[in-house]
Amino acid sequence: MQDLEYIKDPRAIEKRSFEIIEGHVDKLNFEMCEWAVIRRVIHTTADFEFADLLKFSPKAVDAGVVALQGGCRIYTDTRMAEAGINKKALKSLGCEIKCFIDHPQVAVMAKEMGITRSMASIMTAADDEKTRVFVFGNAPTALFKLIELINQGKANPDLIIGVPVGFVGAKESKEALMKLSIPHITTRGQKGGSTVAAAIVNALMYMAIEGRPHGNE
Amino acid sequence: MQDLEYIKDPRAIEKRSFEIIEGHVDKLNFEMCEWAVIRRVIHTTADFEFADLLKFSPKAVDAGVVALQGGCRIYTDTRMAEAGINKKALKSLGCEIKCFIDHPQVAVMAKEMGITRSMASIMTAADDEKTRVFVFGNAPTALFKLIELINQGKANPDLIIGVPVGFVGAKESKEALMKLSIPHITTRGQKGGSTVAAAIVNALMYMAIEGRPHGNE
Repeated sequence: MQDLEYIKDPRAIEKRSFEIIEGHVDKLNFEMCEWAVIRRVIHTTADFEFADLLKFSPKAVDAGVVALQGGCRIYTDTRMAEAGINKKALKSLGCEIKCFIDHPQVAVMAKEMGITRSMASIMTAADDEKTRVFVFGNAPTALFKLIELINQGKANPDLIIGVPVGFVGAKESKEALMKLSIPHITTRGQKGGSTVAAAIVNALMYMAIEGRPHGNE
Repeated sequence: MQDLEYIKDPRAIEKRSFEIIEGHVDKLNFEMCEWAVIRRVIHTTADFEFADLLKFSPKAVDAGVVALQGGCRIYTDTRMAEAGINKKALKSLGCEIKCFIDHPQVAVMAKEMGITRSMASIMTAADDEKTRVFVFGNAPTALFKLIELINQGKANPDLIIGVPVGFVGAKESKEALMKLSIPHITTRGQKGGSTVAAAIVNALMYMAIEGRPHGNE
């Protein structure tokens, strides 16, 4: 029986995918360094809506790239977001991921305080000053908690990637994030998720390694 | 400063989320055991389109539940899908996950054969007869390869959860899957992904533990 015909080379697949995306969305509508992020999110989700939904505070991409080039620690709210981040790129930048969600200490803390493990996890991460980039793909409660800590002067990250997904609190947590002056990348509405979060981190890491594109041409 | 107001209890969040979903989609249009899967995918993605996109071959949910109750091994194409699968439920069923994607041997095999690591990984998994459920959230090439192995009589899984995402091959790989007589759960079109794949596995595991709902009432 003959083999099915399909493209097998991963680089060829990504290149072709980006061509298809750029045939559907006019990249000239975006800053180039923001487009690099948007394009990768669409590549990951096959959902063109993200071209409208993704929102960047001024210089958010720059802030992320500089922090990553400095070899910062990255907090992720879930093991899924952690798993989706490119480990080779991470290593070449000297960065580390910290995800406390399944630490026994965090489970105890959550139970004692009657809060989610995500919230207990973010409180642990905020105490570590080397953690400069905070990534939320799942838990609105964790993002709300970080915003509280920032408002209380107890946290001051370089970049927040806040793309929780869902019907309960996700939209509201992102609206609260958009009011902060701290650099952030987020989505309007209910959509987001761990794959979106990881795609944003990867796009920033590739720019941190290969250099940022400039302007919108 | 006062704390922001939000629901903090994870179970209350999930319950409220399901209520919102069932306010938008009429569950009476679906078999109950299929709705349990669809509802969880929408909960995970905040994307109501999945109510239309998800497709089940006859008795696919039953086949998955029975395999999971038998304590089978589950192949996943990515570490992200693996990370999203509920470990507590997995343990209580006596199931295991096998993901070979970053095994050094698989990397060597991929390089030597000029194929993707996903394809090399599926060839390794297909050789293990305890692996009964195959989960694809990312790689069309791996799903295509499994279909080839099945057509050659070299693989015979109990259930295929095939929801690769993207613009190159994903749709085509799922159309090829839909032609198989082996039980499968898939999505029409380009959407899917690791979070969708993990949500499907989790919904099946919860039914394997708590029992399946019956009929469509």
